[in-house]
Amino acid sequence: MRVLGVDPGLTRCGVGVVDSARGRRAELVAVGVIRTDPELSVDLRLLRIAERLDAWFDEHVPDVVAVERVFAQHNVGTVMGTAQAAGIAMVGAAKRGVPVALHTPSEVKAAVTGSGRAGKEQVQRMVAGILGLAEPPKPADAADALALAICHLWRPAGALQGGERHELTAAQRAWAAAEHAAKGRRAPR
Amino acid sequence: MRVLGVDPGLTRCGVGVVDSARGRRAELVAVGVIRTDPELSVDLRLLRIAERLDAWFDEHVPDVVAVERVFAQHNVGTVMGTAQAAGIAMVGAAKRGVPVALHTPSEVKAAVTGSGRAGKEQVQRMVAGILGLAEPPKPADAADALALAICHLWRPAGALQGGERHELTAAQRAWAAAEHAAKGRRAPR
Repeated sequence: MRVLGVDPGLTRCGVGVVDSARGRRAELVAVGVIRTDPELSVDLRLLRIAERLDAWFDEHVPDVVAVERVFAQHNVGTVMGTAQAAGIAMVGAAKRGVPVALHTPSEVKAAVTGSGRAGKEQVQRMVAGILGLAEPPKPADAADALALAICHLWRPAGALQGGERHELTAAQRAWAAAEHAAKGRRAPR
Repeated sequence: MRVLGVDPGLTRCGVGVVDSARGRRAELVAVGVIRTDPELSVDLRLLRIAERLDAWFDEHVPDVVAVERVFAQHNVGTVMGTAQAAGIAMVGAAKRGVPVALHTPSEVKAAVTGSGRAGKEQVQRMVAGILGLAEPPKPADAADALALAICHLWRPAGALQGGERHELTAAQRAWAAAEHAAKGRRAPR
Protein backbone atom coordinates (compact mmCIF):
# COMPACT_ATOMS: atom_id res chain seq x y z
CA MET A 1 0.00 0.00 0.00
CA ARG A 2 1.23 3.48 -0.88
CA VAL A 3 0.17 6.40 1.29
CA LEU A 4 0.64 10.07 0.43
CA GLY A 5 0.65 12.19 3.59
CA VAL A 6 -0.21 15.89 3.51
CA ASP A 7 0.64 18.26 6.35
CA PRO A 8 -1.54 21.14 5.15
CA GLY A 9 -0.42 24.73 5.24
CA LEU A 10 -0.71 27.82 3.08
CA THR A 11 2.94 28.92 3.30
CA ARG A 12 4.45 25.44 3.59
CA CYS A 13 2.49 22.31 2.77
CA GLY A 14 4.42 19.12 3.59
CA VAL A 15 4.04 16.11 1.28
CA GLY A 16 5.44 12.64 1.89
CA VAL A 17 4.96 9.32 0.14
CA VAL A 18 5.56 6.04 1.97
CA ASP A 19 5.13 2.42 0.89
CA SER A 20 4.31 -0.39 3.27
CA ALA A 21 6.93 -3.14 3.29
CA ARG A 22 7.12 -6.64 4.75
CA GLY A 23 7.17 -7.04 8.52
CA ARG A 24 5.44 -3.78 9.37
CA ARG A 25 8.21 -1.76 7.79
CA ALA A 26 7.80 1.44 5.80
CA GLU A 27 9.85 2.73 2.88
CA LEU A 28 10.35 6.34 1.90
CA VAL A 29 9.32 7.02 -1.71
CA ALA A 30 9.45 10.82 -1.85
CA VAL A 31 9.18 13.83 0.40
CA GLY A 32 8.99 17.57 -0.13
CA VAL A 33 7.32 20.84 0.69
CA ILE A 34 5.05 22.97 -1.46
CA ARG A 35 5.77 26.62 -0.71
CA THR A 36 3.70 29.62 -1.70
CA ASP A 37 4.61 33.27 -1.69
CA PRO A 38 2.86 35.17 1.13
CA GLU A 39 2.88 38.23 -1.15
CA LEU A 40 0.41 36.58 -3.49
CA SER A 41 -3.34 36.64 -2.88
CA VAL A 42 -4.85 33.59 -1.18
CA ASP A 43 -6.64 32.40 -4.32
CA LEU A 44 -3.37 32.22 -6.27
CA ARG A 45 -1.60 30.53 -3.36
CA LEU A 46 -4.32 27.88 -3.11
CA LEU A 47 -4.20 27.36 -6.87
CA ARG A 48 -0.47 26.76 -6.65
CA ILE A 49 -0.99 24.18 -3.90
CA ALA A 50 -3.70 22.47 -5.97
CA GLU A 51 -1.46 22.32 -9.03
CA ARG A 52 1.58 21.04 -7.15
CA LEU A 53 -0.46 18.43 -5.28
CA ASP A 54 -1.94 17.29 -8.59
CA ALA A 55 1.61 16.70 -9.80
CA TRP A 56 2.40 14.64 -6.68
CA PHE A 57 -0.78 12.57 -7.12
CA ASP A 58 -0.05 11.99 -10.79
CA GLU A 59 3.58 11.03 -10.23
CA HIS A 60 3.15 8.76 -7.21
CA VAL A 61 -0.39 7.36 -7.66
CA PRO A 62 -1.15 6.79 -3.95
CA ASP A 63 -3.69 4.22 -2.75
CA VAL A 64 -4.72 6.50 0.11
CA VAL A 65 -4.16 10.17 0.94
CA ALA A 66 -3.69 10.88 4.66
CA VAL A 67 -4.37 14.50 5.66
CA GLU A 68 -3.99 16.11 9.06
CA ARG A 69 -7.40 16.79 10.59
CA VAL A 70 -7.56 20.55 11.19
CA PHE A 71 -9.48 21.90 14.16
CA ALA A 72 -11.01 25.34 14.58
CA GLN A 73 -9.08 25.67 17.84
CA HIS A 74 -5.74 25.69 16.00
CA ASN A 75 -3.71 28.87 15.66
CA VAL A 76 -6.32 31.47 14.74
CA GLY A 77 -3.91 33.39 12.52
CA THR A 78 -3.24 30.49 10.18
CA VAL A 79 -6.11 28.03 10.67
CA MET A 80 -8.16 29.29 7.70
CA GLY A 81 -5.31 28.79 5.24
CA THR A 82 -4.48 25.44 6.80
CA ALA A 83 -8.09 24.27 6.52
CA GLN A 84 -8.26 25.46 2.92
CA ALA A 85 -5.03 23.69 1.96
CA ALA A 86 -6.42 20.51 3.57
CA GLY A 87 -9.63 20.92 1.57
CA ILE A 88 -7.65 21.32 -1.65
CA ALA A 89 -5.77 18.09 -0.89
CA MET A 90 -9.06 16.28 -0.23
CA VAL A 91 -10.55 17.44 -3.54
CA GLY A 92 -7.40 16.40 -5.39
CA ALA A 93 -7.70 12.90 -3.97
CA ALA A 94 -11.48 12.67 -4.40
CA LYS A 95 -11.40 13.65 -8.05
CA ARG A 96 -9.07 10.70 -8.65
CA GLY A 97 -11.26 8.34 -6.63
CA VAL A 98 -8.50 7.94 -4.01
CA PRO A 99 -9.83 7.52 -0.44
CA VAL A 100 -8.92 10.21 2.08
CA ALA A 101 -8.03 9.49 5.71
CA LEU A 102 -7.97 12.25 8.31
CA HIS A 103 -5.72 11.80 11.33
CA THR A 104 -5.41 14.10 14.32
CA PRO A 105 -1.98 15.34 15.43
CA SER A 106 -2.20 13.21 18.59
CA GLU A 107 -3.06 10.09 16.57
CA VAL A 108 0.01 10.73 14.45
CA LYS A 109 2.27 11.27 17.45
CA ALA A 110 0.94 8.14 19.14
CA ALA A 111 1.44 6.06 16.00
CA VAL A 112 5.10 6.96 15.52
CA THR A 113 6.29 7.52 19.12
CA GLY A 114 3.81 5.62 21.29
CA SER A 115 2.71 8.87 22.97
CA GLY A 116 0.06 11.30 21.77
CA ARG A 117 1.91 14.06 23.65
CA ALA A 118 5.32 13.55 22.07
CA GLY A 119 7.27 16.64 21.05
CA LYS A 120 7.98 17.68 17.46
CA GLU A 121 11.64 16.62 17.63
CA GLN A 122 10.77 13.21 19.00
CA VAL A 123 8.34 12.66 16.13
CA GLN A 124 10.98 13.73 13.61
CA ARG A 125 13.62 11.40 15.11
CA MET A 126 11.19 8.48 15.00
CA VAL A 127 10.25 9.22 11.38
CA ALA A 128 13.92 9.12 10.46
CA GLY A 129 14.42 5.88 12.41
CA ILE A 130 11.37 4.14 10.95
CA LEU A 131 12.36 5.03 7.40
CA GLY A 132 16.06 4.29 7.92
CA LEU A 133 17.19 7.85 7.23
CA ALA A 134 20.44 9.24 8.62
CA GLU A 135 18.64 12.33 9.85
CA PRO A 136 15.10 13.73 10.02
CA PRO A 137 13.75 15.25 6.80
CA LYS A 138 13.71 19.04 6.85
CA PRO A 139 11.69 21.18 7.18
CA ALA A 140 9.40 19.92 9.93
CA ASP A 141 6.42 20.04 7.55
CA ALA A 142 8.05 17.38 5.38
CA ALA A 143 8.70 15.12 8.39
CA ASP A 144 5.13 15.65 9.59
CA ALA A 145 3.75 14.60 6.21
CA LEU A 146 5.77 11.36 6.42
CA ALA A 147 4.55 10.83 10.01
CA LEU A 148 0.96 11.13 8.74
CA ALA A 149 1.61 8.52 6.06
CA ILE A 150 3.27 6.17 8.58
CA CYS A 151 0.38 6.72 10.99
CA HIS A 152 -2.03 5.61 8.33
CA LEU A 153 0.01 2.50 7.45
CA TRP A 154 0.33 1.56 11.11
CA ARG A 155 -3.10 2.45 12.37
CA PRO A 156 -4.48 -0.21 14.71
CA ALA A 157 -6.95 -2.53 12.99
CA GLY A 158 -10.45 -1.31 13.72
CA ALA A 159 -9.25 1.91 15.30
CA LEU A 160 -10.62 4.02 12.48
CA GLN A 161 -14.09 2.54 12.29
CA GLY A 162 -16.99 4.97 12.44
CA GLY A 163 -16.14 8.62 12.69
CA GLU A 164 -12.87 8.45 10.84
CA ARG A 165 -14.41 7.48 7.49
CA HIS A 166 -11.00 6.55 6.16
CA GLU A 167 -12.57 4.13 3.77
CA LEU A 168 -15.54 4.78 1.57
CA THR A 169 -18.90 3.31 2.43
CA ALA A 170 -20.70 1.35 -0.26
CA ALA A 171 -22.92 4.38 -0.92
CA GLN A 172 -19.92 6.67 -1.25
CA ARG A 173 -18.23 4.29 -3.65
CA ALA A 174 -21.36 4.09 -5.79
CA TRP A 175 -21.73 7.84 -5.75
CA ALA A 176 -18.12 8.53 -6.63
CA ALA A 177 -18.10 5.84 -9.30
CA ALA A 178 -21.17 7.35 -10.92
CA GLU A 179 -19.72 10.84 -10.76
CA HIS A 180 -16.53 9.75 -12.44
CA ALA A 181 -17.67 7.07 -14.83
CA ALA A 182 -18.31 9.56 -17.60
CA LYS A 183 -14.89 11.09 -17.16
CA GLY A 184 -12.92 7.91 -17.53
CA ARG A 185 -11.38 8.35 -14.13
CA ARG A 186 -10.50 5.48 -11.85
CA ALA A 187 -13.37 4.64 -9.50
CA PRO A 188 -12.56 4.27 -5.81
CA ARG A 189 -11.67 0.81 -4.64
CA MET B 1 -19.33 43.81 -15.10
CA ARG B 2 -20.57 40.39 -14.07
CA VAL B 3 -19.97 39.24 -10.50
CA LEU B 4 -20.48 35.71 -9.22
CA GLY B 5 -21.05 35.72 -5.47
CA VAL B 6 -20.36 32.66 -3.32
CA ASP B 7 -21.75 32.23 0.19
CA PRO B 8 -19.55 29.30 1.15
CA GLY B 9 -20.82 26.31 3.08
CA LEU B 10 -20.36 22.56 3.07
CA THR B 11 -24.05 21.61 3.34
CA ARG B 12 -25.44 24.58 1.42
CA CYS B 13 -23.22 26.80 -0.74
CA GLY B 14 -25.10 29.81 -2.14
CA VAL B 15 -24.24 31.02 -5.65
CA GLY B 16 -25.56 34.16 -7.30
CA VAL B 17 -24.68 35.96 -10.52
CA VAL B 18 -25.39 39.67 -10.95
CA ASP B 19 -24.64 42.08 -13.79
CA SER B 20 -24.07 45.76 -13.30
CA ALA B 21 -26.52 47.93 -15.21
CA ARG B 22 -26.78 51.64 -16.02
CA GLY B 23 -27.37 54.08 -13.20
CA ARG B 24 -25.93 51.96 -10.41
CA ARG B 25 -28.51 49.27 -10.95
CA ALA B 26 -27.96 45.53 -10.74
CA GLU B 27 -29.61 42.71 -12.67
CA LEU B 28 -30.13 39.16 -11.55
CA VAL B 29 -28.59 36.63 -13.95
CA ALA B 30 -28.88 33.40 -11.96
CA VAL B 31 -29.08 32.18 -8.40
CA GLY B 32 -29.00 28.81 -6.70
CA VAL B 33 -27.62 26.63 -3.96
CA ILE B 34 -25.16 23.77 -4.19
CA ARG B 35 -26.14 21.15 -1.63
CA THR B 36 -24.09 18.21 -0.45
CA ASP B 37 -25.15 15.14 1.47
CA PRO B 38 -23.94 15.24 5.10
CA GLU B 39 -23.74 11.43 4.96
CA LEU B 40 -20.90 11.60 2.47
CA SER B 41 -17.28 12.06 3.56
CA VAL B 42 -15.90 15.60 3.46
CA ASP B 43 -13.62 14.91 0.49
CA LEU B 44 -16.56 13.82 -1.68
CA ARG B 45 -18.65 16.77 -0.52
CA LEU B 46 -15.87 19.22 -1.39
CA LEU B 47 -15.42 17.55 -4.77
CA ARG B 48 -19.11 17.99 -5.49
CA ILE B 49 -18.88 21.69 -4.60
CA ALA B 50 -15.82 22.07 -6.85
CA GLU B 51 -17.55 20.39 -9.77
CA ARG B 52 -20.79 22.34 -9.39
CA LEU B 53 -18.94 25.65 -9.03
CA ASP B 54 -16.92 24.82 -12.14
CA ALA B 55 -20.22 24.46 -13.99
CA TRP B 56 -21.36 27.87 -12.72
CA PHE B 57 -18.08 29.49 -13.76
CA ASP B 58 -18.22 27.88 -17.19
CA GLU B 59 -21.85 28.81 -17.80
CA HIS B 60 -21.76 32.40 -16.55
CA VAL B 61 -18.13 33.47 -17.17
CA PRO B 62 -17.93 36.06 -14.37
CA ASP B 63 -15.47 38.97 -14.43
CA VAL B 64 -14.98 38.73 -10.67
CA VAL B 65 -15.82 36.13 -8.04
CA ALA B 66 -16.86 37.60 -4.67
CA VAL B 67 -16.52 35.20 -1.74
CA GLU B 68 -17.47 35.75 1.88
CA ARG B 69 -14.38 36.18 4.02
CA VAL B 70 -14.48 33.42 6.64
CA PHE B 71 -13.08 34.07 10.11
CA ALA B 72 -11.79 31.51 12.59
CA GLN B 73 -14.20 32.96 15.16
CA HIS B 74 -17.22 31.77 13.18
CA ASN B 75 -19.34 28.85 14.41
CA VAL B 76 -16.74 26.30 15.49
CA GLY B 77 -18.87 23.37 14.37
CA THR B 78 -19.04 24.45 10.74
CA VAL B 79 -16.16 26.88 10.19
CA MET B 80 -13.76 24.28 8.78
CA GLY B 81 -16.18 23.19 6.07
CA THR B 82 -17.09 26.80 5.34
CA ALA B 83 -13.43 27.76 4.99
CA GLN B 84 -12.77 24.78 2.75
CA ALA B 85 -15.73 25.56 0.50
CA ALA B 86 -14.46 29.16 0.24
CA GLY B 87 -11.01 27.84 -0.69
CA ILE B 88 -12.50 25.61 -3.39
CA ALA B 89 -14.32 28.62 -4.85
CA MET B 90 -11.09 30.65 -4.84
CA VAL B 91 -9.18 27.92 -6.67
CA GLY B 92 -11.97 27.59 -9.22
CA ALA B 93 -11.72 31.30 -9.97
CA ALA B 94 -7.91 31.42 -9.90
CA LYS B 95 -7.50 28.56 -12.35
CA ARG B 96 -9.59 30.56 -14.83
CA GLY B 97 -7.61 33.74 -14.16
CA VAL B 98 -10.70 35.40 -12.66
CA PRO B 99 -9.90 37.81 -9.80
CA VAL B 100 -11.29 36.95 -6.36
CA ALA B 101 -12.69 39.54 -3.95
CA LEU B 102 -13.25 38.69 -0.29
CA HIS B 103 -15.90 40.66 1.59
CA THR B 104 -16.77 40.41 5.26
CA PRO B 105 -20.38 39.85 6.35
CA SER B 106 -20.53 43.38 7.77
CA GLU B 107 -19.24 44.89 4.51
CA VAL B 108 -21.99 43.03 2.67
CA LYS B 109 -24.69 44.15 5.10
CA ALA B 110 -23.49 47.74 4.93
CA ALA B 111 -23.43 47.70 1.13
CA VAL B 112 -27.00 46.51 0.70
CA THR B 113 -28.74 47.99 3.77
CA GLY B 114 -26.54 50.89 4.86
CA SER B 115 -25.85 49.20 8.19
CA GLY B 116 -23.16 46.64 8.98
CA ARG B 117 -25.36 45.31 11.76
CA ALA B 118 -28.50 44.70 9.70
CA GLY B 119 -30.39 41.45 10.30
CA LYS B 120 -30.62 38.58 7.83
CA GLU B 121 -34.21 39.37 6.85
CA GLN B 122 -33.41 43.01 6.19
CA VAL B 123 -30.55 41.97 3.90
CA GLN B 124 -32.83 39.57 2.05
CA ARG B 125 -35.55 42.20 1.59
CA MET B 126 -33.00 44.68 0.21
CA VAL B 127 -31.56 42.09 -2.18
CA ALA B 128 -35.06 41.49 -3.53
CA GLY B 129 -35.70 45.22 -3.83
CA ILE B 130 -32.40 45.99 -5.54
CA LEU B 131 -32.88 43.22 -8.09
CA GLY B 132 -36.60 43.95 -8.62
CA LEU B 133 -37.75 40.56 -7.35
CA ALA B 134 -41.24 40.03 -5.92
CA GLU B 135 -39.79 38.25 -2.93
CA PRO B 136 -36.37 37.37 -1.48
CA PRO B 137 -34.62 34.38 -3.07
CA LYS B 138 -34.77 31.26 -0.90
CA PRO B 139 -32.93 29.77 0.86
CA ALA B 140 -31.00 32.46 2.73
CA ASP B 141 -27.71 31.17 1.31
CA ALA B 142 -28.89 32.08 -2.19
CA ALA B 143 -29.86 35.59 -1.10
CA ASP B 144 -26.54 36.00 0.70
CA ALA B 145 -24.64 35.06 -2.44
CA LEU B 146 -26.51 37.75 -4.37
CA ALA B 147 -25.81 40.25 -1.59
CA LEU B 148 -22.09 39.46 -1.91
CA ALA B 149 -22.21 40.09 -5.64
CA ILE B 150 -24.12 43.37 -5.16
CA CYS B 151 -21.65 44.39 -2.43
CA HIS B 152 -18.82 43.94 -4.89
CA LEU B 153 -20.57 45.91 -7.64
CA TRP B 154 -21.40 48.74 -5.25
CA ARG B 155 -18.21 48.85 -3.21
CA PRO B 156 -17.02 52.42 -2.62
CA ALA B 157 -14.25 53.44 -5.00
CA GLY B 158 -10.94 52.96 -3.23
CA ALA B 159 -12.49 51.16 -0.28
CA LEU B 160 -10.84 47.90 -1.17
CA GLN B 161 -7.33 49.17 -1.71
CA GLY B 162 -4.58 47.43 0.17
CA GLY B 163 -5.59 44.56 2.38
CA GLU B 164 -8.56 43.48 0.34
CA ARG B 165 -6.52 42.46 -2.69
CA HIS B 166 -9.67 42.32 -4.77
CA GLU B 167 -7.68 42.99 -7.86
CA LEU B 168 -4.45 41.37 -8.88
CA THR B 169 -1.21 43.25 -8.57
CA ALA B 170 1.03 43.45 -11.61
CA ALA B 171 3.22 40.71 -10.13
CA GLN B 172 0.24 38.49 -9.51
CA ARG B 173 -1.02 38.97 -13.04
CA ALA B 174 2.37 38.09 -14.44
CA TRP B 175 2.63 35.04 -12.23
CA ALA B 176 -0.84 33.80 -13.05
CA ALA B 177 -0.39 34.48 -16.75
CA ALA B 178 2.84 32.49 -16.79
CA GLU B 179 1.26 29.63 -14.86
CA HIS B 180 -1.60 29.39 -17.30
CA ALA B 181 -0.03 30.29 -20.60
CA ALA B 182 0.88 26.71 -21.33
CA LYS B 183 -2.64 25.56 -20.60
CA GLY B 184 -4.39 27.87 -23.01
CA ARG B 185 -6.46 29.37 -20.24
CA ARG B 186 -7.51 32.97 -20.15
CA ALA B 187 -4.97 35.15 -18.36
CA PRO B 188 -6.26 37.55 -15.70
CA ARG B 189 -7.15 40.99 -16.89
